[in-house]
Order: sequence, then structure tokens, then C-alpha cells
Amino acid sequence: MFSIILAGGSGSRLWPLSRELYPKQLLNIQNKESLLQETYKRVNSFIPYGNIISITNTKHASNVKYQLSSLAKNPIVISEPESKNTAPAIATSVKYILDKYKDSKNSVILVVPSDHKISDIKAFEKTVKEGEKLAIEGYLVTFGVKPSYPETGYGYIQTESKISTGYKVKQFVEKPNTKNAEQYVNDETVFWNSGIFMFTPDTFMKEIEKYSPAIFNIVNRFNFTEKDEIAYTEFENLPNISVDYALMEKSDNIAMIELKSDWLDVGSWKSIYDVSKKDIDNNVKIGHVLDIGSRDSLMYSSSKLVATIGLEDAIVVETEDAVLACKKDRVQDVKQIFETLKQQHDNTQLVHKTVYRPWGYYTVLAQGEGFLTKMIQVNPGQKLSVQSHNHRSEHWVVLSGTAKVVLEGKEHILSPGHSVDIAVKAIHSLQNPFEETLQIIEVQKGDLLIEEDIIRYEDMYGRV
Amino acid sequence: MFSIILAGGSGSRLWPLSRELYPKQLLNIQNKESLLQETYKRVNSFIPYGNIISITNTKHASNVKYQLSSLAKNPIVISEPESKNTAPAIATSVKYILDKYKDSKNSVILVVPSDHKISDIKAFEKTVKEGEKLAIEGYLVTFGVKPSYPETGYGYIQTESKISTGYKVKQFVEKPNTKNAEQYVNDETVFWNSGIFMFTPDTFMKEIEKYSPAIFNIVNRFNFTEKDEIAYTEFENLPNISVDYALMEKSDNIAMIELKSDWLDVGSWKSIYDVSKKDIDNNVKIGHVLDIGSRDSLMYSSSKLVATIGLEDAIVVETEDAVLACKKDRVQDVKQIFETLKQQHDNTQLVHKTVYRPWGYYTVLAQGEGFLTKMIQVNPGQKLSVQSHNHRSEHWVVLSGTAKVVLEGKEHILSPGHSVDIAVKAIHSLQNPFEETLQIIEVQKGDLLIEEDIIRYEDMYGRV
Repeated sequence: MFSIILAGGSGSRLWPLSRELYPKQLLNIQNKESLLQETYKRVNSFIPYGNIISITNTKHASNVKYQLSSLAKNPIVISEPESKNTAPAIATSVKYILDKYKDSKNSVILVVPSDHKISDIKAFEKTVKEGEKLAIEGYLVTFGVKPSYPETGYGYIQTESKISTGYKVKQFVEKPNTKNAEQYVNDETVFWNSGIFMFTPDTFMKEIEKYSPAIFNIVNRFNFTEKDEIAYTEFENLPNISVDYALMEKSDNIAMIELKSDWLDVGSWKSIYDVSKKDIDNNVKIGHVLDIGSRDSLMYSSSKLVATIGLEDAIVVETEDAVLACKKDRVQDVKQIFETLKQQHDNTQLVHKTVYRPWGYYTVLAQGEGFLTKMIQVNPGQKLSVQSHNHRSEHWVVLSGTAKVVLEGKEHILSPGHSVDIAVKAIHSLQNPFEETLQIIEVQKGDLLIEEDIIRYEDMYGRV
Repeated sequence: MFSIILAGGSGSRLWPLSRELYPKQLLNIQNKESLLQETYKRVNSFIPYGNIISITNTKHASNVKYQLSSLAKNPIVISEPESKNTAPAIATSVKYILDKYKDSKNSVILVVPSDHKISDIKAFEKTVKEGEKLAIEGYLVTFGVKPSYPETGYGYIQTESKISTGYKVKQFVEKPNTKNAEQYVNDETVFWNSGIFMFTPDTFMKEIEKYSPAIFNIVNRFNFTEKDEIAYTEFENLPNISVDYALMEKSDNIAMIELKSDWLDVGSWKSIYDVSKKDIDNNVKIGHVLDIGSRDSLMYSSSKLVATIGLEDAIVVETEDAVLACKKDRVQDVKQIFETLKQQHDNTQLVHKTVYRPWGYYTVLAQGEGFLTKMIQVNPGQKLSVQSHNHRSEHWVVLSGTAKVVLEGKEHILSPGHSVDIAVKAIHSLQNPFEETLQIIEVQKGDLLIEEDIIRYEDMYGRV
């Protein structure tokens, strides 16, 4: 069996914790592992990692690879040159499997989003085994979830007759209004559409050729036997369309099995609240929070103190550069804040002040005309790439640990309080070959202080 | 005429904008000038600055002096070694006037808190002139404000017969319950107690001797003709008591005049909301705020983006190290947050990350075991004291402007990107004799990184 993990995502709905360059599947909220890592482990519990393909946008590829590297050696990650929704992502991944794995045409593929919470892995695996039978029989198999309340944010699936381990699907229903959602909760034949699918490459390709020939024709020209990358010019003409629109709602060859496990689509701050453990006042408090008399609220602090008094049904989220305070029934409008910031080219939409890298992280402490100051942490045994900059000089001061700096071929060992100057265009590398964590202050000076001004000569993480 | 400005204050009620070491009278919310500066200018419009005495706690004295220096040459500021409420502060200031000004016994003193908003200075001055008459006649004169709504957070004054320009006071009433407050609003004889007073030193001393001999006996021993400072041992036994309790509620020699001007006691975030200009949704937005559909709320951002959605009657205040989100009718509980933080020795109660100094300001950017990093701004023509440290080395990197550094007698001129090391115990000074603002990054290294580890040898602001 194969699995395709859909690891794209815009980062809008959990803003300010998610960002365009750090979408929600990469976040670890109250957990050690991110939603992506949890998803990978869940699938990997019964599918070998050599058969798990993650697909994401090129701008998230290095973060996805980095997170999965802690779970598997050389995880397979396909980079899309552009975000094109689920239909092109799934079709591209199916073509990858057909090209890369001999005789995979009639194997079964499990397609999973990377932002679901499922705790009962045994029950999940049991459902997958049931789905496998239907997929082998030639169905496009969807996973339905018994509705527990009239959610208007999900799509619904209406079933008809029972077949084999599941049901024949009568129709897909778009996000309903409250009245219809209330009817569906009481209708035994109606389920939530979980967004999890199973099929064979053969079935999928035949169906997509029939119902979305535009996607089929473009994807069919991809040749992963020759190269792993997809060029932008090959990809750009794919329509931006979900697999539900492109295929599921059109095909009459759809089966549904009922998902036996627990399931949560982590789609908003409200769903984070719903899934988290509450205190006696029904509040969820994460981080440094001090409350007097609030109820039914979520308070999240990532860097500073958050004090709340007398709130009800509220969401308060604090990050290093932005605060969100929102009524719980208005969390869908977070997307609108995100889009407004994007239009305003406001960086608080795009990136965090703290950016994680394979070697550790950096935090932007201060910036002004002609300068930028970062705190850089290099984990033990890690090493930044050998690099130079065309537009900036750098000055490094060691705060804690010991730095090995190679500057124009000369090695410097710096202990706390010691510093070094890196001139414009000088080839340099910052390394921590020691056992203690290294922290330094970097002061950049120059006319153009952007991340893109890095010329890499050598990199232990393959980023040259 | 003299004026005493009461410039103490605990900094609790406007937290996180106010701090124990930066109380509300020092804040400039939406204004160029702080409440203290506005108060000083108001009084100075009809009393010469040589007759205006500000009294504050020793921990605020340098900030008070610094703020008043922009309005007057050598402003008079008395430092109390300890906070002892209004009765000891007023009594001390009256003794100062008696000692320092010949024949001042029968002059009139106007006592004003430093956290009131009054725009109509002409009407205020008119009321003062009326009060002056009553003070000369030998009364302790209070200023009453016609209640506009049943406020339960103020004390009230009940008047009886009319005398001269005002009324004889029947009694002072403690903060009332809602029912009584509602009665008072409709009672023509009842006023809010503004906390503004007038009297002659002679009247005040006679009355305080009669009703609070403990205060009189201690204060009477202060001798400002010999020295301007009060020793802690002289001051510590004064009772911690308000002038209302110590004197006003006991004396039968009280007159009241009605304050003719507008008046607002800036006592809480709600009063900041009330006094500020509202937008079409009745919101007050200060700083970088993005809102969707909130109403009747105050959003205050001092450093990062604050995004709000669907709030009603809420207060959201963001500072560099703390966020407050509070229902508007619960603002009195902000004090409780402040007290809790104080008990926890949490620095977000005590100081801001950015600390203003006579020469500019510094911001703590990052700190960890054995290190502390600041961004320091030195304004043009300013100079930090000549100093040394027993427990830390420092490393300075210039970000913008030009630094003049004198280190162990040797002068260094540093342009952006250049750095200098200051060893433990080395005598050094940072100066900006140039026209451009100077910004540097300071990295402190050492076992004890506290503000108190400064040995000053020379200081242009008199702090040696």
C-alpha cells in the first residue's frame, strides 16, 4: 500500500500562529510533534516509509523535509512549483507512484490531509483495511465521519445502498446552512466528508481522464523516471481545483466507508479550543497566562505574558509580533485578517520573527535603516552553510556555548563575549561542533538585508 | 500662590502600560505630553515655576525631574524615601514651603493630583481664584465636581449652607454602592470629591496637629532649610494614610467650591476609553490595530500588530512584554493582576522592556544565563555617565549614527558596523556629540547582570 500526504496549506486560519511560510500542519500546539509529523507516524504505523509520498508547495518543502527527517531517512517530498489545490496535488503524486514504483498500477493508495487529529490509530488502520477492499474492487473510496453536531463548515456525503465493507455514495453536499446541517445530524445515511481517500492508480487515472481531462493531460506528461522536480512551466497551467469538485462530485463510482476512529479537522482556533483539555472554568490556557474570571475561552501565549479578565467565549493568541483577540464564533474571519495583511505586504502574515532551520533557529530582535539584529541558536553538532553575502557585512558576538567560525579559510574558536567581523563577500561558516548549544548575536549592516542574499558553497542539509 | 503636585502613584491600574517604576502620571497616551506634564503646565499657567513643588517617591524622582525639565529650569521635586499616601506627602510639602519660603505661612497652596485631565484651563483658574478667597478665610477648601452619572469608584462630598464663593461641607462619603450613587446624582447638594485642595500652610498645620498629631510631630521635625533630602529613618514612621482619612473627614472647617472646568480622573482603562475619540463603531484604536466588527472597545498597540474580531465592550492592550485582554466593566481587577505579578516577582509588573533615560532609552532584546542584550539609543548631544561595572564585560556594536567611546581615557570614534570591548572594571563612557541619533547593540556578559552594577564617576544629569 502507498500513502500520499497532502502537506500544502495557506497558513491563514490559525494566524498569528500559522503564517504563509509556516502553515498549520507544521505547528506543534501543546504537543511535541507537529500535525504533519503525527500524520506521518500514523500512516507509517502500517505503510513503510519508502511508500509514503508527501506533496507540498516549494516554499514549505525544506520545512516539510526537515520535520519528516526526524521520523524517516530521506523522506519522499514532492515540491509543487505553485499551490494548485488538492486535485493537481493528488494527480501529480499518483503519477509519481506510477513512474517510480514498478507494477504499482493496481496497488492501493491512501490519501490523507496533514492537518487532522486522530488518536485511535488501531481503529484508523481497521478502516483503511476495509477501504482497501473497496479500492481493489475499483471504487474511489471516501472516508465518512458520523456527524456529532450540525457543523456548517464541513462538506457532507449522502450514502445509499450498502456494498461490501461500505456504502455506495449517492451525492456529495457542499457546506450546508444551519437548517440542513441539523437535518443531516439526524439522518443515518449522511456523513461528514473527512477528506481522506483510497483508490488504485489505475482507477484514479481513468476517472480523472474522464472528468478532468485538463488535469490528466498535463500530469500525464510529467516524467518522474527522468527527474524528481517539476518545472514551473509544466505545472502552471493546471487548474486550481479541489479533488471534490474535479472528481468526487462528478464520478458515479464512489464508495464510502465509515471512519471508525476519532477524528478532528484542525481548521480553526475554535477546533483547537474544542480538542484541548479545559480547566474548571472551561478555559484552555497555553503558555504564560494569568486569568481572572474568564470562561469558555482560549488563551495562548508564545512569548510574553497574556493577562485576561472576565472574557467569555473569546480567543486570545499572542506571538512575538502579533496579537489576535477574537470572539469564538468569529474565528472564520481570521482568514480575512490574514488576507488584509497580505494585501498590505505586512510581514506578520508571511513569516514569524523566529524562523526554524535544520541547524537551529534565528529570531529577528531589531531592525532599522541599514541594520538588522538577530539572535542565532546553533544546536550541538550543527553547522550553517559555507556562504557569502553581496550586500551585507556581519558582526557576530558569542552569548553562550563556543563557536567555530571559518572565515576566508581561517579557523577561529570564539568563547562567550568574543566577536568576529565578516566583511561583505567574505566566505564564512558558523559551526557548533561542541556539545553545548551555541547562541550568538548577529548584527547585519548593509543596503539590502534580505534572506535571499546568501550565496551557498557547501551545505550539510543539501541546500546548495 | 503655591502649588503642590502629588506625583507618586503605584502604576497598578493602567498596567501593562503603567508599571511600578513607571506609573500612569508619566505616560503619554495619545498625547505628546504625559499627565504629569499636562498638570504642571496647567498649574504653571497662573503660578510661577519657582512656587510649584512636585512630590514623588524616590524611585520615580529621576523620571519626574526629567519630564519636568522640558517645562521648567530646575523644577522642584521632593523625593519621599517611601510611599506613604497623600497625607504625609502633603504635610511634607507644606513643611517644605514653610521652611524654604519666607513669610509663606498665610500664602495659599493649591494641591493637585498629577493624573487628572482638565482641558478648560481658564475655567479651572477661575475656580482656583474662588477657592483662594475661602482659603484666606481659613478653610480647608475642597473642589467638588457635579456628578454626571452614578460612579461607584469615587468618593462624594455632601454640602450644606452656601458660604462666600462656595459651600460649607456637611460630610465626606466613601465610595458608595450603586443605589446610593444613583441617589447622589439627583441630589443637588452632593458632588464628586476631585482630590484637589486649597489652604494656607497655617490652616493646614493647625488642623493636622489637631486631627493627626502623629503626622504633625514627625513632619514638623523635617528641616528643609538645612537639607533638601529626607532620611528614611526620619520618614519611615509616618502613617500610610490619605488626606481624606487623616484630615478632611475629621475637620469641621471644610469648604467646597464647585469645579467649573471639565474634569477626568484617569483612573482606569475605562476612563482612557471614555476620554478618547471614538470611531464609527465606537472603538478607540491606538497604534497598529486591525479590526473586523468590534464595538465599544479600546485596542492599544505599542509595539506589534493587534488584530481584533467581533469584540464588544473589551479592552485589549499590548506592550513589548505583556498583553491585557479585559471586559470593560472589569477594569478594576487590573490592579489584582498587578498585585499577583508583584507577589510572583514577575518583572512585567515592575519595569518596561524599554526604559527611558535622560540621554535616550534602552530596550532589553534578549537575555539568558550569563548574557543580556540591549539596543541603546543615545540622542544627539547626549552622553551616558562615565562608569564602570564590577560584574560584567560589555561589547558594543554601532547600528546607526556615530559613537564617541572613551575607554580607560582613550577616545574611539565608531561608525556603523564597528565594535568595541569594555572589560570588567574598565572605566568607560558612551557619548553622542553628533547631530544624528546613535543606536548601538550592547551585549553584556557576566555572573550578575543588574542595572545596579554601575559605578558612576561623572554624570551630566547629576546622578553621581
